[in-house]
Amino acid sequence: MAKPTVGALTGFPEWLPHQRMVEQDLMDRIRRRYELHGYVPLETRSVEPLDTLVKKGATDKEIYVLRRLHAEDDGDSGLGLHFDLTIPFARYVVQHKNDLTFPFKRYQIQRVWRGERPQDGRFREFYQCDADVIGMNNLPVWWDVEMTMLMREVLDDLPIPAVSIQVNNRKILEGFYRALGITDLSATLRVMDKLDKLGPQKTLAELEALTGLPTATASRCLDLASISGSDLDVLRRIEALGYTDPLLQEGLSEMELVLRETASLPAGRVVANLRIARGLDYYTGVVYEGVMAGHEQLGSVCSGGRYDNLASVGKDKLPGIGVSIGLSRILGRLFGRGMLDMSRKSPTCVLVALATEETRADARAVAESLRARGIATEVFDRPLKWGKQIEYADAKGIPYVWFPAGEKPDHEVRDLRSRTQAAADVASWMPEESVSRPAIVRKEG
Amino acid sequence: MAKPTVGALTGFPEWLPHQRMVEQDLMDRIRRRYELHGYVPLETRSVEPLDTLVKKGATDKEIYVLRRLHAEDDGDSGLGLHFDLTIPFARYVVQHKNDLTFPFKRYQIQRVWRGERPQDGRFREFYQCDADVIGMNNLPVWWDVEMTMLMREVLDDLPIPAVSIQVNNRKILEGFYRALGITDLSATLRVMDKLDKLGPQKTLAELEALTGLPTATASRCLDLASISGSDLDVLRRIEALGYTDPLLQEGLSEMELVLRETASLPAGRVVANLRIARGLDYYTGVVYEGVMAGHEQLGSVCSGGRYDNLASVGKDKLPGIGVSIGLSRILGRLFGRGMLDMSRKSPTCVLVALATEETRADARAVAESLRARGIATEVFDRPLKWGKQIEYADAKGIPYVWFPAGEKPDHEVRDLRSRTQAAADVASWMPEESVSRPAIVRKEG
Repeated sequence: MAKPTVGALTGFPEWLPHQRMVEQDLMDRIRRRYELHGYVPLETRSVEPLDTLVKKGATDKEIYVLRRLHAEDDGDSGLGLHFDLTIPFARYVVQHKNDLTFPFKRYQIQRVWRGERPQDGRFREFYQCDADVIGMNNLPVWWDVEMTMLMREVLDDLPIPAVSIQVNNRKILEGFYRALGITDLSATLRVMDKLDKLGPQKTLAELEALTGLPTATASRCLDLASISGSDLDVLRRIEALGYTDPLLQEGLSEMELVLRETASLPAGRVVANLRIARGLDYYTGVVYEGVMAGHEQLGSVCSGGRYDNLASVGKDKLPGIGVSIGLSRILGRLFGRGMLDMSRKSPTCVLVALATEETRADARAVAESLRARGIATEVFDRPLKWGKQIEYADAKGIPYVWFPAGEKPDHEVRDLRSRTQAAADVASWMPEESVSRPAIVRKEG
Repeated sequence: MAKPTVGALTGFPEWLPHQRMVEQDLMDRIRRRYELHGYVPLETRSVEPLDTLVKKGATDKEIYVLRRLHAEDDGDSGLGLHFDLTIPFARYVVQHKNDLTFPFKRYQIQRVWRGERPQDGRFREFYQCDADVIGMNNLPVWWDVEMTMLMREVLDDLPIPAVSIQVNNRKILEGFYRALGITDLSATLRVMDKLDKLGPQKTLAELEALTGLPTATASRCLDLASISGSDLDVLRRIEALGYTDPLLQEGLSEMELVLRETASLPAGRVVANLRIARGLDYYTGVVYEGVMAGHEQLGSVCSGGRYDNLASVGKDKLPGIGVSIGLSRILGRLFGRGMLDMSRKSPTCVLVALATEETRADARAVAESLRARGIATEVFDRPLKWGKQIEYADAKGIPYVWFPAGEKPDHEVRDLRSRTQAAADVASWMPEESVSRPAIVRKEG
């Protein structure tokens, strides 16, 4: 049989086993933290009807469409792979509203797909780790604070460089644009979202072309985007630009709440940044982006915001707010820089050596006994020379090799770190706590 | 904004939150068991080049092909969603062979996709929970036993009806067919794999048409398929059919090893069944299928086998063997029959009631203190009447509601099961162990 096509596919990252162990450890931490806050686990199917995906305001997301290989009409299935977890979640809540209790809090750790041009930190298939809450007709502004704090807690629990959460509010942006006389607010947002990419000159030119405003007025959008800071002074600087609008006022008071309630955090953890726009149409209030210290060029490693109009049922509105950790982007960077590793390449704590084919039953009995006490154990699969078996354990970082009684009257355990060997009792021996399981190792990049 | 398209997609199952909690619990058990045996976690990308998928012997699997919505040439990407986890794993091992230590043991819990017609127990998107080992040029026959025992352990650890593992060996089938004078062995296997669907008459007719053999000879395939049993007598009954072939002999001795080594298990746990063929071309030795007691019509709930020729590098062969638990199929059935549930609909153990907007900081402080001690806690989001807040906790099955000190001098905790309320200390109160976390509840179907 021909050998499988070998080779990586650009944009579809795959980790080595010890890297997957790191990823799993981080997912466990995220999951534990979300559950500690009462968020239920949820997964949705990977596909949505294409019109749902297209309609829901993906301003710049490229969708993968599915076709069955042997479809008779050779046509598309009408299904696309989801490009985020928010749109599927909103659809799910509408579909199952009678089975859910509101406010409904769920977390969702799942792959998403975007057919965009892959580049540093931008994959075509990647994990997002989301937490969202959706209310029935009502989702108090207090959730803006809760979500900020939740994201803060999750990020602080991860073995990664410090992440600064940048906060903005769509109501401030849209209200300000409206006060300037701009009518196409979402197109304006899309232009402003490209500010980092285009630079101020081109952004201003695009704004003028879009809005027809004179340079002096259009440039006020850039003035607004230049404002950032952690304290309430930010609000005064926005007001000092001299525009008023009811939506702008609402946004300012929402942002004030977030800044006030996070003021006791260490400096830089939560920062108002009027430059943040977010590339998705569905946000209506607070928006978040997180940047990792020392890796600012990587772009946002977590994001989210409030979406009050994404879902509804009849007269009932289903306002929501959520956050998302871009785990694959974070790991891709930290793995690439050698900054995150595992203490060993296998969960195995003990390798039971195999002396001869005839003593395999004894070796298996040792392994079963150790496993029954929660010690991850494997038996080497062939009676090779001891040196070969120890080599295997060394290569995987397995800390102990067990030699069953037989040639010698007692069982013996070899500690591969100290290269010492001693008699041991199958029923009571325990590994050192520090090596009983693999653990995360952080390194300076 | 328009509301999302609502509605289930046939073949793409989605669970309710408490069902997802069950699924996650079962995945955790499977993961724990695989890791206890030293299997490393691994995930592969969801896509493979289409030619890899097509070549690798999917005899009856319908593949989903991807196309980018805005692809300039309007053509396929040349990528398809994987339909199993074995082919991606074999490709991965070839690709990363220099980074792996052999024998390489990994487990993989991931979604797969098949564009087949959905029916009871047959989904288009579903989870498989695989464990495989791949050796470098060598994978002792002993692994046939190890894998049987591993699958046995994993299944016995799940809160599901007993599963009987049906074992066969492709070498017995192919050797026997060859001894009958049949040349197209894999086409014959494919016909025999449909025996349960077609019945004996039609299968025999297909066999005759395929092989050109007279009825008396072709019907020996059905005679072979009718043999099953747990003890070594099975082997004598195969030999009594009177055909010999070196491959057949090899298969018989491999099966003897498995039957002998599993003889001490309770009756029916491992059964030789010569009817098992498996629908995938890549198997070369032992093959497995598991059927769940009382749900035999559902088909196989776990499967696997040995594949000695799926992967190679230059002169090096990479023989493998693996098992796969069809978790979505199992859960779809047990959820459908109301046989598996969770003790409550949320991880939350304590709901902190909110008296007034002014006391929100107090309520949050209580929640933070409880979470710091590992107790999953949420604060109700609005200062509604106590009755409304208790109603929310009841609907989610949250066992405790905490009333912060304020109106009353002490904190008080209400146990919603006994409807009793008592003073409690934030720094030391602990929930009853039995309700600290949600737990699996099994019910008779």
